[in-house]
Amino acid sequence: MTYCVGLMLNEGLVLLSDTRTNAGVDNIASFRKTYLFEEPGERAIAILTAGSLSVTQTVIAKLQEAIDDPDAHPGGSIMQAGSMLAVAEIVGNMLSQVSTEIQAKMNRMQQSATASMIVAGQRRGGAPRMFLIYPEGNFIEATPDTPFIQIGEHKYGKPILDRVITPETSIADGRLAVLLSMDSTLRSNLSVGMPLDLTIIRTDECRISEQLRIDERDPEFIALSEDWSNALRDSFTRLRDQRKV
Amino acid sequence: MTYCVGLMLNEGLVLLSDTRTNAGVDNIASFRKTYLFEEPGERAIAILTAGSLSVTQTVIAKLQEAIDDPDAHPGGSIMQAGSMLAVAEIVGNMLSQVSTEIQAKMNRMQQSATASMIVAGQRRGGAPRMFLIYPEGNFIEATPDTPFIQIGEHKYGKPILDRVITPETSIADGRLAVLLSMDSTLRSNLSVGMPLDLTIIRTDECRISEQLRIDERDPEFIALSEDWSNALRDSFTRLRDQRKV
Repeated sequence: MTYCVGLMLNEGLVLLSDTRTNAGVDNIASFRKTYLFEEPGERAIAILTAGSLSVTQTVIAKLQEAIDDPDAHPGGSIMQAGSMLAVAEIVGNMLSQVSTEIQAKMNRMQQSATASMIVAGQRRGGAPRMFLIYPEGNFIEATPDTPFIQIGEHKYGKPILDRVITPETSIADGRLAVLLSMDSTLRSNLSVGMPLDLTIIRTDECRISEQLRIDERDPEFIALSEDWSNALRDSFTRLRDQRKV
Repeated sequence: MTYCVGLMLNEGLVLLSDTRTNAGVDNIASFRKTYLFEEPGERAIAILTAGSLSVTQTVIAKLQEAIDDPDAHPGGSIMQAGSMLAVAEIVGNMLSQVSTEIQAKMNRMQQSATASMIVAGQRRGGAPRMFLIYPEGNFIEATPDTPFIQIGEHKYGKPILDRVITPETSIADGRLAVLLSMDSTLRSNLSVGMPLDLTIIRTDECRISEQLRIDERDPEFIALSEDWSNALRDSFTRLRDQRKV
């Protein structure tokens, strides 16, 4: 399984993915699920993927082919698209096409292979935008009402986002919130695993402002995880003691 | 959907269920999902149900028929069973039989109707025990390693249980923990809803020690819910401020 989360804050986009993939519980591997496309100062795009690796890798490879040789690809290159909406359309169309091809192979075995994606970024002259691309290729967009998008194993990590994230949240707080959201997910679902990929695209920089791989020996993440567990336990104890008075 | 949770603590059994049922999002109703069977001082049994109401109501009705007229029911009565294990077997067999009958009707429409249950209780001379009955009728038992069982929408409410519950947890703390676990679930899944049914069976009392319906106007639950939200936000702020120093 997978957990990916993206925040669309006034200060910029904060994106976090895990790296665990598995084919059954006895075949586990690490694959990057965050793909970055950048022309610094002009445009920065992050694509986070969940679902069948055979689908997501093929989609990314074909998007890359179209970037390398746009003329040979009538669908267009995400690095030349005129808006983030057009980027989402290109990714959605590619996902739909690849899924359909792979599904035709899978049907014979009565299996299925689907994927979903978060597409986020900004091009110069446009606003930062973030989209959730569904397995069928259609998509929705994050708005100030719900300024975050999750794909994969989203339930364990949602309560902290619901309580903390608004468009006014700072990037520093957003970064902390996605790490805590991931921590809750890692604890409860073995098929989500370290290392993590954190990406930050600050508003109007139109470049990948920060890109960080966090592995299981990262002292900051270990401390964060312990402090949060202790904070939850302390909150529980305090709530109980208030009620005993 | 549904959320039911049971704790097996040294001091006793703590059980909580919601009451919301729905057939589609436009057809919502309230039904009790906790069923209690008691012969005070001799035995106390609680059954919490999740899944198709047509299955769970029929199972409970047939269990009740067997209690009223044990001779006519070769499967046996849960009020006469010689152990809690035998109670779990009777409930599992009944669930399997009813599911099979209803499923035969559903197959024509390519629909499915399944249910799962928590069966918990104690009879005089035995220990308190708690079982999770799967839709197929087989079951597992709570142990000191994992002294809680959840059915239905279990993910949102699991992190607090993971962090707080051990067999040594007091009933007062267990009661608070299941209410917080339910609160997280209510916030994140509209198909889980108030009022709630809380049941406590203290060890060796062999009776329903406490039984409480909590509705949405309950001042204690409203305060608990707000205090917990504030505590989580405060914990987040404190964690962030520590990191700024």
